[in-house]
Parts: sequence; structure tokens; C-alpha cells
Amino acid sequence: MPQISLSRRLRRTPFSDGVQAAGVKAYTVYNHMLLPTVFESVQVDYRHLKDHVQVWDVSCERQVELRGPDAARLMQMLTPRDLRGMLPGQCFYVPIVDETGGMLNDPVAVKLSEDRWWVSIADSDLLLWVKGLANGYRLDVLVDEPDVSPLAVQGPKAEDLMARVFGDRVRDIRFFKFDMFQFEGRDLAVARSGYSKQGGFEIYVEGGDIGMPLWNALFAAGEDLQVRAGCPNLIERIEGGLLSYGNDMTDDNTPHECGLGKFCNTHTAIGCIGRDALLRVAKEGPVQQIRPIAIEGDAVPPCDGPWPVYANGKRVGQVTSSAWSPDFKTNVSIGMLRLSHWDAGTNVEVETPDGMRRATVQERFWI
Amino acid sequence: MPQISLSRRLRRTPFSDGVQAAGVKAYTVYNHMLLPTVFESVQVDYRHLKDHVQVWDVSCERQVELRGPDAARLMQMLTPRDLRGMLPGQCFYVPIVDETGGMLNDPVAVKLSEDRWWVSIADSDLLLWVKGLANGYRLDVLVDEPDVSPLAVQGPKAEDLMARVFGDRVRDIRFFKFDMFQFEGRDLAVARSGYSKQGGFEIYVEGGDIGMPLWNALFAAGEDLQVRAGCPNLIERIEGGLLSYGNDMTDDNTPHECGLGKFCNTHTAIGCIGRDALLRVAKEGPVQQIRPIAIEGDAVPPCDGPWPVYANGKRVGQVTSSAWSPDFKTNVSIGMLRLSHWDAGTNVEVETPDGMRRATVQERFWI
Repeated sequence: MPQISLSRRLRRTPFSDGVQAAGVKAYTVYNHMLLPTVFESVQVDYRHLKDHVQVWDVSCERQVELRGPDAARLMQMLTPRDLRGMLPGQCFYVPIVDETGGMLNDPVAVKLSEDRWWVSIADSDLLLWVKGLANGYRLDVLVDEPDVSPLAVQGPKAEDLMARVFGDRVRDIRFFKFDMFQFEGRDLAVARSGYSKQGGFEIYVEGGDIGMPLWNALFAAGEDLQVRAGCPNLIERIEGGLLSYGNDMTDDNTPHECGLGKFCNTHTAIGCIGRDALLRVAKEGPVQQIRPIAIEGDAVPPCDGPWPVYANGKRVGQVTSSAWSPDFKTNVSIGMLRLSHWDAGTNVEVETPDGMRRATVQERFWI
Repeated sequence: MPQISLSRRLRRTPFSDGVQAAGVKAYTVYNHMLLPTVFESVQVDYRHLKDHVQVWDVSCERQVELRGPDAARLMQMLTPRDLRGMLPGQCFYVPIVDETGGMLNDPVAVKLSEDRWWVSIADSDLLLWVKGLANGYRLDVLVDEPDVSPLAVQGPKAEDLMARVFGDRVRDIRFFKFDMFQFEGRDLAVARSGYSKQGGFEIYVEGGDIGMPLWNALFAAGEDLQVRAGCPNLIERIEGGLLSYGNDMTDDNTPHECGLGKFCNTHTAIGCIGRDALLRVAKEGPVQQIRPIAIEGDAVPPCDGPWPVYANGKRVGQVTSSAWSPDFKTNVSIGMLRLSHWDAGTNVEVETPDGMRRATVQERFWI
């Protein structure tokens, strides 16, 4: 693996000192910020995540803050998900689309109050799209990136660890809800959410100065729980069917192609900029869609570009994420397949850098 | 140095096979794309760039294409530089600002025709800002990222190499102008420009399929010129005062703070979204500005975050890029200094990770 050249442009986070001290071995770059990818090894990190509890520096989930009288209106312009029923204290996974229905991001929207929202973004400068719309439509709203850096606590022992630091009330937070908790006199939003299927929380750390104190408090409280530094794990997130914007989908794709049709209320999401473009695909369905795919044989090499998928010599799709799963003893994969070849059980061939491999479309992800 | 985890999201380029075969040692990520940073070593790469000719994969300078009746109007909305006098065939360095006058990017605009422009961007998703404005203002313009990947040929022997591949007519291209040239039957824009002070060209390679054929043609033609693969060089670009968006400036800064006031015609750039916000700073000048700074002592460590600058114990600015220059025998640096301490000859102190260093503001960059 080549090295990464560090510079101010690849922003450090409030937790970078902790991440380095914990022996991070590799990074990716996400929203112009360092995101750890490996501590011991992807396989060892995976095992530990499934058995214990990890603290993840996911500061790169930057927030786009919308604040002001037109915040809710602008928020609805961004997404085909109907937000009218959303209450303060809720988190919604919201596909964000442009005027053609192409995905610009797949963030989690956090409703702080009627006129204040955070959008916890995937890897694209969504801030610029939102600012451009606010300016063009002359909306009465402030759009900014606040000093908020999410810290995730993930794994089966996450709740126990969090309760030790924030009190037993964290146990009452329901999935995709958040509540406010104090740490060193500061009010922090804590949500039951995160980019794994092992359960856990995301702490929206407002104010970088309390980053390392909180990091240290979690590690001090969790020694006997075998807490350690971790990061979103490639194997675990593919097993769980957690999509990655930029990997599994781009602005070429509609939410329906990404299997996110259930988050689109295209008929009632009045004001959504991509609504007209999505009405037809919402009615008739897409012609290609994301599917879980098991690739046979030994561990595949790293997937650093789309791998073409064939059936009877014809191209029928592509694989965009793939890794060997120690638990499921196969190469768990995410791909986009044509309608003709997306049914569970369909046999296809995947062109990997190591050569052609047999593969099978799965009924569901590995959860 | 930690490693970089490769994935589809960190996009490969049409030249990635060539870059890997040439033994790239490190990358950064720029516009969600791999940008090589080191081949042999930053020092060896530097020497070779100044003596010979290098071919650079700068595909990460993605293009934002504006096409349609409102393209010129939208282009002027983006920048305080007056574009009325710009002719097809010209390249203009254009600061891009938001409604507050904050820099969103510092690209080169390429005017292909009255209704068709390319904006060759620095590291931010400018596409989203431009699309948002086009949508909000209901402009009659298509905004897209075309399949165009710039390939730079830089160094004192660049003109000779280019003439061998494209013919002697390349010698007639003037600085920041472009002309069309054929390669394998394809028309390509070739500009005299690039992110070094050693002279050279940028080829706007339209269609990824001819990427490697062009790469190979340049290497085949330049063997006796000692052509080799290279990349923007940290030392050389600091010496030359070439700013890096995200490193030396961010959306916190106005063009005037970045020393780009000469590219702002704030009074006549009618339609520029940031014009009102910039009128006052254009008249009175900024209170902080980018300056060349020489840091004393041995080679500094890598600058991966702002280094505070002090005078008499008070903070007066920050250094954001710094490297040891073999030619000038000092740590050439770029920093932002307060008005009170930006005059050439001013002595300051810089807080590096290795401790406090004495430093002096320079009259000009090292060119």
C-alpha cells in the first residue's frame, strides 16, 4: 500500500492525537479530513468490533447546519423523504438528490428544533449545494459547517461503556433518536446510531477542545470492557449492507437504484428539487439496483474501482465493495445489477484484478 | 508515514496504471481522486523537475463545465474578476467567492467559446455550488463534470518534449493561452500553464481511453530528455509562491487576504455574488495577508496543520506550508500574517512541532 502525504488540507480532528497514540496504520480521506481505516488489521479490528467496544473518530461526518425561519423548507428541498412528521430529537436517513434525481449525498439529518438542523454528511461538499440553493432561492437561513465532530462508540458493549461516562439514561435512547447529555459542563447530543450493525452511539462533540478529554474518559472507563480505538470496518459494513457514498453509489444513481426507495415519499415530498425527476422511477422502479453478492474462491484483492459483472458474456452490472468475511467464509460484496440479473440465486461472473470469479446474488445482506 | 487505503471513492485516473508502474510512493486525495505526491523522494523529484521534464497526472484538477446561453452570466456570478474582456482561447486564474467574499476555490477558468467554459478546480466540490446557483437562479445552463483529465508536462525541457509529440506549433502557445492539437485523431486543448514555475503545459485529455496512449507517447518521445513521472512538488511550489487551496487558504479567507486582490475587479464585476461583501475590503485592504516566510534552522517536520506565529509573545498569524529548500538553504514557507507584522524583514517566531523557531518575513517568494 502506498503512503499518504499529510498536509493541512487533509484536516486533522479533535481526536487525532488519540488516534495516532493508538497506533493507526492507515487512513482514507473523507470530507477533506482524515478517517482512520486500520488499527491492527482489518480482520483483527473486525473481530474486536463484533466482540467488544470501540471508539471511532468519525469527525469526517461533518455537519451542515441549517438555521433560521426557512431551515425546514430548505431541508425538504434537499430530499425526497417527507419530513413533515419528523420531530425534534429524531434522526432521519435522508437521500439528497439534485434536480435530475441523482444522489449528492446520503446523510443523517438531525432535527435539533423546528428552525435548526444538522445534516451529518457522507463524502461530498454538500455545504456548497445547500449554500448555493439558499442563495439562489433567497431563503432566510444560515448555512454553515459548525465545530461539531462526531465520535462513535460501537460494539456489543457500547451501551455499558456509554452508561459509565454519561449515566444510565443513555440506555433509554431509542434507535435513531438522540437526547442531550452533559460532559464537563457541556451539553452534547448523543444519538443511538452509527456505521456498524453491532449497536452503539454517536456523540456530536460540539467544541473541539473537549475532544481529547472525552476520548480519554471513554478509554479510562472501559478498560475492563477491552475498549480500543477503531474505525468503520470494511468487512463488517459490507456484511451489514451499509452503503458507502462514492463507493457503492454516485451522483449517477437515483435513491431507488440504491435500494433507498423506502426513504423516498416522492408524491408527498412537496418542494423537493428532484421530485419531478424521481416520479417516474418511483412508479415504475429502477432498471438496476444494489444487491448483496457473494464472490466465490479465496480472499479477493482490495476493490479500488468498479469490477464488471457478466452473465453469458454480457455485462450486467458491477461490484464496488468486496472483502473476505471470516464469519461467513465468502467474499461479501456490494454491487449494482441490471433488473434481468438481480434476483437472489442468480449466478454471475465478476472480473476481479485476479481474474474472473463465479458469484451469486444473495437474498439479503449477511446480518 | 501512515498508509492510504484505496477504494473506488478515491478515484483512479486514466493515468493511474502509468503512475503505479513508475513507482509512486505516496498520494494525497484531491477532489475525491488520487494525486501522486512522491516518486523517488520530494528532494530528488524537486531536483529533477528543475533540471529536466516531468509528466504529471493532475486528473484531480476536475473540470466544471458550464454550457448554454447563461454560461457567461453564471461564470461572472462566481468570481470578482471581470470576465468581459476574456476571449475564447484564454485561461484566467479566478478566485471563486461565496456571498460573504470567502474563497470557495481558486481555479483556472478556460473559455472554450462564448457559451462554453471549463473551470479547472482546486480541492472542493465547486460543481455543487455552481449547480445550486444555476438551479436557484433558474439559469439556462448545463453544469456538469465532463470526462476531462488534465495531464501536465512541466520543467525546462517541457517545450521540447511537447513539440516532439504535438509538433512545433506548441511553441507558439503563450502563457495562460491554449490552442487545439490533435492526438490519435482526437482534438485536445493544450495550455501553457501548470502548478510549477519551471514552465510547461497542461493537456486537457478529453476521453479517458486515450490517457495511457498519450502517457506512453510522451515517455517514448522523451527518453533522451530524461523525462520521468512527477507530481506537484511541495518545495518548488512553496518557493514559487503557488498557493494551495485548503492549505494556505480556506473559505474563511477573502481573495485579498490571499494576495489575490489583483484578480479582483470588485467595482466592475457586476453580478458577482460576493461583490457587496468584498467592496469594503477591496477599498481598505485586508488586516491579514499571505506572505513568504523563511524559518531558520534545520529542516522542519511536515506541516500538517497551521503553525502559530508569534511576535513578542502575541499571536500574529500562522504558517500553513513549509519545507526545506535545497537551493535556498532555508525552510521556505507560506503563512498568513497580521498587518502589523507582514512587512518584509519583520522577525517572528513560529511554533513548529519541534519547538519554537526564529523566522523572517520575506520581500518576495523564492523565484
